[in-house]
Parts: sequence; C-alpha cells; structure tokens
Amino acid sequence: MTTLLQFDFPFDGPWGARMTEALSGLAEDIAAENGLIWKIWTENEVEHRAGGIYLFADETNAARYAARHKARLESFGVTGIVSRSFSVNAELSAITRAPL
Amino acid sequence: MTTLLQFDFPFDGPWGARMTEALSGLAEDIAAENGLIWKIWTENEVEHRAGGIYLFADETNAARYAARHKARLESFGVTGIVSRSFSVNAELSAITRAPL
Repeated sequence: MTTLLQFDFPFDGPWGARMTEALSGLAEDIAAENGLIWKIWTENEVEHRAGGIYLFADETNAARYAARHKARLESFGVTGIVSRSFSVNAELSAITRAPL
Repeated sequence: MTTLLQFDFPFDGPWGARMTEALSGLAEDIAAENGLIWKIWTENEVEHRAGGIYLFADETNAARYAARHKARLESFGVTGIVSRSFSVNAELSAITRAPL
C-alpha cells in the first residue's frame, strides 16, 4: 500500500541554490531508492528547519528507507529528527486533487 | 512562492473507508480554498495519528489556511496539533520526480 513518509529536522543550511548545489548528488542517489515514487525537498530558512515528503509504493520500502535516512542524517550530526509514516486516504486525496 | 504545509495530530478515527465517508464534505470545502494546489490526506491507525500534506501557490494563502484549519481542528476537540510550513526546493525535487 502506498506510504507517505515525512521527515523534518533542525538544519543550518545551505539554503536555496546553494542547497541544490550541495545536495544534487544525494538527490540522484535517493531517486534510485527501491520503491520511491517521489520526494519533495523542503526548507525553512527562518525556522532553520528542513526535510522531505516522500511517497513510497509500499510500507516495507518506506520503513527501510526511513531507518537508512535517519542513520545518514545522524552521521551528518543532525539531531532532533522527526520521522512519521502514514497511509494515504486515496479517495479524500482525489477530491483535493492530490498527485498520487 | 510555492509553500508546502504539513499538519499532523492525534486522531481516534474513523479510518479508511469510514474516514472517507465522514470527511468527504470537508474535502470538498478544502478543495475550494484559495491558493490550494493539492492536499494529500494521511492516516495512521496504529499510531492513532492523522494529518495532511498541502501544496499552496503562495505563503500568504498557506498561512491563512493553517490558522483556519488549526482553529477548526481545535473546535473538533483535537489537541497536540503539529503544523509546519516550508519552501520547496524545486530543483532537488525535480531530481526525485516530485509532482510540483
């Protein structure tokens, strides 16, 4: 079943175009993850917070990725990581034009 | 600028098809919100948690909706609401096939 994964955590930049430059290689790696349908990259420079919203084809791949990504972020020194996994209500989401 | 809004909160159901039935009218109202591009409806019956991921065309409409939705949830008796707003990094998101 399609699984939505939320990640967000304290982040000190880089932001915007410099974030793109620093993390394009990582994005290419993540694009190749098993079961990943898409990831939206999020950033909030004012609140010093960043993260991602992921759609996975199934719960098993989402859980595997969540553990792997949390360990990677911790290896970068990130603490205070919030990671949550949800099912998607496809019928309600269709009413609100969600791209599923 | 496109703004991503995250909401999640403790929730006691209904879940799945019964959630769809209970909240379809609300979904139709939300679909008509100014500036809303889409909303994905999320639910986690095991953790008793639900929420939504929204994409808005601009920060002003996202902030207006966030205040309105928080007040609505509180009027339903919901507490412990987590609401976060982010910019989207469009270039990194394009690498990971995000539907923006």
